[in-house]
Amino acid sequence: MTTVVAAYAAPAAKAPLERTTIERRAVGEFDVLIDIKFAGICHSDIHQVREGWGEAIFPMVPGHEIAGVVSEVGSGVTKFAVGDRVGVGCMVDSCRECENCLAGNEQYCLKGMVGTYNAIGKDGEPTYGGYSEKIVVDENFAVRIPDGLSLDVAAPLLCAGITTYSPLRHWNAGPGKKVAVVGLGGLGHMAVKIAHAMGAEVTVLSQSLRKKDDGLKLGADHYHATSDPKTFEELAGTFDLIVSTVSAPMDFGALLSLLKVDGALVNVGAPEEPISLNLFSVIGGRKTLAGSMIGGIAETQEMLDFCAEHGIGAEIELIRAEEVNEAYERVLASDVRYRFVIDTATI
Amino acid sequence: MTTVVAAYAAPAAKAPLERTTIERRAVGEFDVLIDIKFAGICHSDIHQVREGWGEAIFPMVPGHEIAGVVSEVGSGVTKFAVGDRVGVGCMVDSCRECENCLAGNEQYCLKGMVGTYNAIGKDGEPTYGGYSEKIVVDENFAVRIPDGLSLDVAAPLLCAGITTYSPLRHWNAGPGKKVAVVGLGGLGHMAVKIAHAMGAEVTVLSQSLRKKDDGLKLGADHYHATSDPKTFEELAGTFDLIVSTVSAPMDFGALLSLLKVDGALVNVGAPEEPISLNLFSVIGGRKTLAGSMIGGIAETQEMLDFCAEHGIGAEIELIRAEEVNEAYERVLASDVRYRFVIDTATI
Repeated sequence: MTTVVAAYAAPAAKAPLERTTIERRAVGEFDVLIDIKFAGICHSDIHQVREGWGEAIFPMVPGHEIAGVVSEVGSGVTKFAVGDRVGVGCMVDSCRECENCLAGNEQYCLKGMVGTYNAIGKDGEPTYGGYSEKIVVDENFAVRIPDGLSLDVAAPLLCAGITTYSPLRHWNAGPGKKVAVVGLGGLGHMAVKIAHAMGAEVTVLSQSLRKKDDGLKLGADHYHATSDPKTFEELAGTFDLIVSTVSAPMDFGALLSLLKVDGALVNVGAPEEPISLNLFSVIGGRKTLAGSMIGGIAETQEMLDFCAEHGIGAEIELIRAEEVNEAYERVLASDVRYRFVIDTATI
Repeated sequence: MTTVVAAYAAPAAKAPLERTTIERRAVGEFDVLIDIKFAGICHSDIHQVREGWGEAIFPMVPGHEIAGVVSEVGSGVTKFAVGDRVGVGCMVDSCRECENCLAGNEQYCLKGMVGTYNAIGKDGEPTYGGYSEKIVVDENFAVRIPDGLSLDVAAPLLCAGITTYSPLRHWNAGPGKKVAVVGLGGLGHMAVKIAHAMGAEVTVLSQSLRKKDDGLKLGADHYHATSDPKTFEELAGTFDLIVSTVSAPMDFGALLSLLKVDGALVNVGAPEEPISLNLFSVIGGRKTLAGSMIGGIAETQEMLDFCAEHGIGAEIELIRAEEVNEAYERVLASDVRYRFVIDTATI
């Protein structure tokens, strides 16, 4: 039996979000029904509502940073029980058969992962995200939120956390490694916390020194302004790894010059427009320009366990659902420290 | 006592090369004097003679693919004896103290490696390359050419060989790996031979199918034309590693689409102009765009030993020294299969 639940949705592209109701599918054999408690607001929610990434499906209920509690389980469910604290991130399904799915890289499913919203599920119905009271998800696409983590600060980990944890882990951030994080926003502040907890020496590269005190409190060892040309002189050849979280156009040659031999500049944010790059920036020093997109399900669980162990949650501003449109404007103005989270009890 | 030797030099930028004489320094305590037998012609010789890479030093004696025989050694030399068959590649010195030199990455020396020609040596004098009868080199920048390799086909290994061997080794080409080589020229034909010998499944991606028979003979398992759009459909998501040896502008997004998750596109050739790249090409699939420049001295020795073990030499056209200007024109017209080598006895 389907369930009608309250949600915040954009009725059309670029339209403000408004309260509405949506139907959630009946809880299938391998499904869990989750009472959503908190939903983070990711910059990509805004991109998609405003069709910045191409034509989208409306009405759209955004939200892929979901934290809640299991309230019902299907007969075949083995991973979760009623009352479990769980999270759902950017995807709710994948083909589960391709080499990438089998390798735990469901986010790179060769048939395309099924997004938590703005996608079509295997049942042919549009998916709706976390700005809602409840969601039904296959147990394989839910993850356990450890007891040590409050649900509100855990919610943003499901996207901002895994998006930064995955490349930090993949490119071996840890003791003895110098890691720079470009941009101190929703993603960047998580990258700083996680890289610091991994034991790396962390430098924030931000446009200005405006958030310097915050950066150091979050765990950064150093903080430099990219608007200051001296930054690029002083830090030339310094870093093993740079994680760039910004989507504004940048001088990628200048960033690459900050890497050591064999260093990697990994983009988790990206300008919508193509960048210009002189390949000699990577040839001199066997450098890598790479990208990374969220992480697999098992790795998302690993990230949550890591964050719980190290007492890491997101820095959040909790808002009521009706404040979501205002929050969007503030995200676009970089006026949030560092993640808006909707208290879904207010929907 | 310095030695006067015959050489072919460009007296000025863009001028044709002509026979002249140069002085080689006295054989120092740690130097070896090498009777040069063969010198390969690398595309970058032409770039430098024509100042395509910026202001250069004239007269210029190009040549950094040098094979010869030791004819004199300094009192402190321990690695070589008179009569040894040796090679010299793209560099003849480095600071030997920085972290890159100490790690065997002399080519990325933080103070700048000393190029075999078109550079200033530690003695303040310009360096002159291999289009000459003899050269004096510090023993640490010479490598041993194993008995199994003829000196003529070994010469191009000192640049074309190591430039392709190094990234193939670094990015783990080997059994079970699918490797594509873009471009079948001097570098590309070495990449095919070496990747094949490493046990990888090798595909050539060339503009046309003109050299297909050659490619398959050299060891490629497959051969596709990049001018055919079907190539990009058929081979999407196929390769673990793509080594691009071409310097013509290309569609890098299209090349990246041919990589598997975690695949790497490594550039050893590079367009002089900046490329345009949509970063989503690397984000979707955690892909790497990288570069690589020759290899370190120890790795160059490793490469020569590997080539000897596998019976790999370059495919060459042996020329007389007075044919060098004509050869340059043919290199620019891609009319060489696959490397010109100067018989320095004809200088």
